[in-house]
Amino acid sequence: MVVVMTPEATDADIDAVAERVRANGGEAFVSRGTVHTIVGLVGDTERFKAIDWRQMQGVDHVIQIGKPYKMVSRDLHPETTVVKVGTVPVGRDTFTLIAGPCAVENPEQTMRAIRAAKDAGATIVRGDVYKPRTSPYSFQGLGEQGIEILQEARREFGLPVVIEVVDVSQVAHVADVADCIRVGTRNAQNFELLKEVGLANKPVMLKRGLAMTVDEWLQAAEYVAQRGNSEIILCERGIRTFEPSTRNTLDLGGMAVAQHESHLPVIVDPSHAVGKRHLVAAMARAALAAGADGVMVDVHANPEQAMVDGAQALLPEEVVALGGQLAAIAEALGRQMNR
Amino acid sequence: MVVVMTPEATDADIDAVAERVRANGGEAFVSRGTVHTIVGLVGDTERFKAIDWRQMQGVDHVIQIGKPYKMVSRDLHPETTVVKVGTVPVGRDTFTLIAGPCAVENPEQTMRAIRAAKDAGATIVRGDVYKPRTSPYSFQGLGEQGIEILQEARREFGLPVVIEVVDVSQVAHVADVADCIRVGTRNAQNFELLKEVGLANKPVMLKRGLAMTVDEWLQAAEYVAQRGNSEIILCERGIRTFEPSTRNTLDLGGMAVAQHESHLPVIVDPSHAVGKRHLVAAMARAALAAGADGVMVDVHANPEQAMVDGAQALLPEEVVALGGQLAAIAEALGRQMNR
Amino acid sequence: MVVVMTPEATDADIDAVAERVRANGGEAFVSRGTVHTIVGLVGDTERFKAIDWRQMQGVDHVIQIGKPYKMVSRDLHPETTVVKVGTVPVGRDTFTLIAGPCAVENPEQTMRAIRAAKDAGATIVRGDVYKPRTSPYSFQGLGEQGIEILQEARREFGLPVVIEVVDVSQVAHVADVADCIRVGTRNAQNFELLKEVGLANKPVMLKRGLAMTVDEWLQAAEYVAQRGNSEIILCERGIRTFEPSTRNTLDLGGMAVAQHESHLPVIVDPSHAVGKRHLVAAMARAALAAGADGVMVDVHANPEQAMVDGAQALLPEEVVALGGQLAAIAEALGRQMNR
Amino acid sequence: MVVVMTPEATDADIDAVAERVRANGGEAFVSRGTVHTIVGLVGDTERFKAIDWRQMQGVDHVIQIGKPYKMVSRDLHPETTVVKVGTVPVGRDTFTLIAGPCAVENPEQTMRAIRAAKDAGATIVRGDVYKPRTSPYSFQGLGEQGIEILQEARREFGLPVVIEVVDVSQVAHVADVADCIRVGTRNAQNFELLKEVGLANKPVMLKRGLAMTVDEWLQAAEYVAQRGNSEIILCERGIRTFEPSTRNTLDLGGMAVAQHESHLPVIVDPSHAVGKRHLVAAMARAALAAGADGVMVDVHANPEQAMVDGAQALLPEEVVALGGQLAAIAEALGRQMNR
Repeated sequence: MVVVMTPEATDADIDAVAERVRANGGEAFVSRGTVHTIVGLVGDTERFKAIDWRQMQGVDHVIQIGKPYKMVSRDLHPETTVVKVGTVPVGRDTFTLIAGPCAVENPEQTMRAIRAAKDAGATIVRGDVYKPRTSPYSFQGLGEQGIEILQEARREFGLPVVIEVVDVSQVAHVADVADCIRVGTRNAQNFELLKEVGLANKPVMLKRGLAMTVDEWLQAAEYVAQRGNSEIILCERGIRTFEPSTRNTLDLGGMAVAQHESHLPVIVDPSHAVGKRHLVAAMARAALAAGADGVMVDVHANPEQAMVDGAQALLPEEVVALGGQLAAIAEALGRQMNR
Repeated sequence: MVVVMTPEATDADIDAVAERVRANGGEAFVSRGTVHTIVGLVGDTERFKAIDWRQMQGVDHVIQIGKPYKMVSRDLHPETTVVKVGTVPVGRDTFTLIAGPCAVENPEQTMRAIRAAKDAGATIVRGDVYKPRTSPYSFQGLGEQGIEILQEARREFGLPVVIEVVDVSQVAHVADVADCIRVGTRNAQNFELLKEVGLANKPVMLKRGLAMTVDEWLQAAEYVAQRGNSEIILCERGIRTFEPSTRNTLDLGGMAVAQHESHLPVIVDPSHAVGKRHLVAAMARAALAAGADGVMVDVHANPEQAMVDGAQALLPEEVVALGGQLAAIAEALGRQMNR
Repeated sequence: MVVVMTPEATDADIDAVAERVRANGGEAFVSRGTVHTIVGLVGDTERFKAIDWRQMQGVDHVIQIGKPYKMVSRDLHPETTVVKVGTVPVGRDTFTLIAGPCAVENPEQTMRAIRAAKDAGATIVRGDVYKPRTSPYSFQGLGEQGIEILQEARREFGLPVVIEVVDVSQVAHVADVADCIRVGTRNAQNFELLKEVGLANKPVMLKRGLAMTVDEWLQAAEYVAQRGNSEIILCERGIRTFEPSTRNTLDLGGMAVAQHESHLPVIVDPSHAVGKRHLVAAMARAALAAGADGVMVDVHANPEQAMVDGAQALLPEEVVALGGQLAAIAEALGRQMNR
Repeated sequence: MVVVMTPEATDADIDAVAERVRANGGEAFVSRGTVHTIVGLVGDTERFKAIDWRQMQGVDHVIQIGKPYKMVSRDLHPETTVVKVGTVPVGRDTFTLIAGPCAVENPEQTMRAIRAAKDAGATIVRGDVYKPRTSPYSFQGLGEQGIEILQEARREFGLPVVIEVVDVSQVAHVADVADCIRVGTRNAQNFELLKEVGLANKPVMLKRGLAMTVDEWLQAAEYVAQRGNSEIILCERGIRTFEPSTRNTLDLGGMAVAQHESHLPVIVDPSHAVGKRHLVAAMARAALAAGADGVMVDVHANPEQAMVDGAQALLPEEVVALGGQLAAIAEALGRQMNR
């Protein structure tokens, strides 16, 4: 349940609503919009329903929507949100290429990948230092040392950086050093982590879980928004199906549904979706043509030596070629590409 | 196992191989290529392996490939096949738009849909008269009466027609009146039907089954090719996954894998894949950008009155708009669109 | 829509309803029950809805149920049906073991498998002569020669036989020689085949398709029932999921739902579900404990030489051991096992 | 890679191996068995492969197994592990019933559920205080207050308790107050949480993730074992498939594979797998008949008022009836039920 305040509601009005929620054993999450402030109610829905909220000062109306998410829903917020990563806007009017190494392995590998990304027209850099790996025997990331390499890269190339967090304890630090915090596929329903990034003061990129419906993905985003952080970029990266010839099955239909149901920007990670280099560019082009707000791809100059996911990394020359194709398709569709 | 004959092999050489296969309890399927004739061996593989085929006159080599399909494999046939539907080539060099009514309901509905298809740049028409329906209480198609309507449409618009068959008994007749025979999703592993269309003298469009891996899809195509008909167009149309927000999950990665593994052209049916009108054009554009050789879409002027799948049919003006977008993307990618 | 006649309705009453359906462009499928005769209406549902059927003589009521199947639904037929295969009742009160070779390969292999089946307590024999194989290069069955072997086995062991059909053209002949006709997984939505077995005068075993929901499975059964044959045994045999360690994923929950929603008996084929010999007995026991009306297992004395699915066939001594375990569990649960 | 030490290896020998691993940029996880101590190597596998570990003192051999998990594998540890929860052994020789409330809501509800569980023969109690909920608007658990209720219940009924943790920060506290820590489905690949429970001094129950293969599930268990805690109970609870009639699809085949591949005990949670009360007992019986080492079921005296998952909770009388059935089946199969 969500209580929508009038544009004229005062802070005291909002506090009064929140107080009543707490008095009824619930929690109130206040999200101040440019026009309306809305109060999300968590707790015993039945008990909340028994209260006539509209009698309270400053309350406009109450929403009892069927959809299990509210703040991220387009119903409440018809215009698509533009999320700024550093100074780069991610949203419907521009198409954003995000590229860089899957994992930061060492300074040289990182710089080469980011240089190629920039040459390709990427305006945001990816690069991870904490890797959630299926096997405990796989490389788990460079940690702090990797962050220093990324800081150096940011100084050199001037591009904002998105970094994944895998535990609550990392959020504050990564929020300090990155321009966007990413929650990965395997943590997409790690609700404590979602709550924590919801308190951070940086945009959040939320990947879809392997077995998450679009509805559940948007509910995960709602955990973040509920804490007050609505600077969320959704990232489709393939779902788990019976088909073994690709790593996962890229769900562009699901991407389009997420764009339709939510006001958040939605991008696509074709690298992790298909897991095979020779298919990545085709899927990136498809994502743009389907209307995605951006794509994020892995780049590695020596993929055979990559410590993580080398099989899916584009070579420097491949990402540059892809950048040109994306610009051409964007133009053909009357869209602009971030440059 | 496949025995590849030398370019110089005589009919007598080929017959001798086939005879030996039969003498060992197997069946031999002879496929005469422009350069090599190949003989597919069916039966007890272990027994065949014990024979030194290369000792026989006219035999070039024997293939023991790991892949469970052979004739449709790119290994044997590196260049992509161009299938002619009527006079329209379907293959890698051109991009083909196929459009028309999902089901033929009456002359007026059919003509309006096909007129819109032609206006949109479609060069092949779809329209079904036998409908495989999940529910026995749903409209099952007009049958012969529908074929007459399609014949009339062909005379009027001059476009070749693809029609689905749902039983062995229909194949000969549909092959007479259609330019391409389609085997649908629910019959994609109806092996007797596959064998029958393999004997027909018309191109075959083979849809992927809802739970078929790419490997199994190509094996189904092999059933057709094995009977001597290698004029096969593969059609990806969504697979069954856990995601409920679209009818099925469009698998463009699987489409690209099929193109990579097989020499057959591969098209995409976005209408049946997503099942929602407002997503169809986006998925059609994505299919083109991903490299598909064509797309096939449903058109209906009054979808709310459609007897089959109205929710996914494009309106006439929508298919025309889509045609323009497809042409623009094709041009941006340096591909040509069939006109 | 279904029109339910009163117990007193005459043949003339029934004919009048059927006539009116046809006059409105539809087809009427009459199913004469011991108490009520019901008429299934196929065609334009909206048009049927506009007619007040209850005004007609002998009509009791009209059912407009949300469920997409009617005749196989428990709503219309609260008591569970007992299907007789030969003289063997398959239903809730008894638990039936069906066993035998996956495919009939030769007389000796067949006889050994059936002897073991009988020793294990099986009361129905399986054995196929037409095999729907994913690969066109696999053994496709012995055909008529296999039927002769099964006839001989029936004379020797006195057990009824279930045989799969893979095409409309085989139905009449198999119905003559078998005690139960089976429609396999890959033909579970081959609607023309379903219609044909619906006209046969023998019980039908209908396997669930790899990607069929329980709802769709029951609609497939409805195709059979609609033609007048309601002697249907449903057979759960695993669905396709992402898990690769078993051939398919046995869905005992789906089996239980089918029993709950439909009045038809439901059995389980653990052999094809898991595809690994060492798991088959465990899954057969689980099926019984979950309430299945029977199980069907593959048996082969020399599975390493089997031409089809040897990896999942139980050895003679294994099926005998399983028979003992099943009897013990049945007794513990207060159920009887067919003997 | 795993280095297996000889039975005679000294602490100094083990330290030397660990030291060399670290010198090569890796981490060494030492697990001291009763016969062999094994050292798990994490890091750059290629680099490790270049070293001849067998030259070092006390090294018996090196294992380069294809399987991506090692310590939990049956290859290394052929006998099935018995995990003691409090004084209750969970393993192959006994069958354990775990029951109690899904969530602790208040003292009365908790006590009634646990009393019924005990009456049914349950020897371990479940009851959660931190709930990972798909929706942020759902009840998130009582937290510390719930723990106090469970402590009281333990004093009253004398049964050990399993409690779920949803964040690293809770692990130490829950390990103090519970007899077994549970990692839930949505955190099954929250690797930081797995590492943390691996350091705890209490048994861990690890649920299978909705989209996890058995292989990946065992790798998640390996994360726990690698930290030194090999008191792990695996819990199958249904996987995500296309079938909508049950909440998830119970994968008893996957359960049996996990038992076969791993030495850890494997139990089944039928409540969360099917999500419908009327199917839970059937699936619990099936799990026992399939060979599971235990089942865990939800109990609620007033399920319509339950704050979490009421639709799947057994009533007190239902769980008692189920207890009787399980005992009967166990006896029929020659197994003992924990009492």
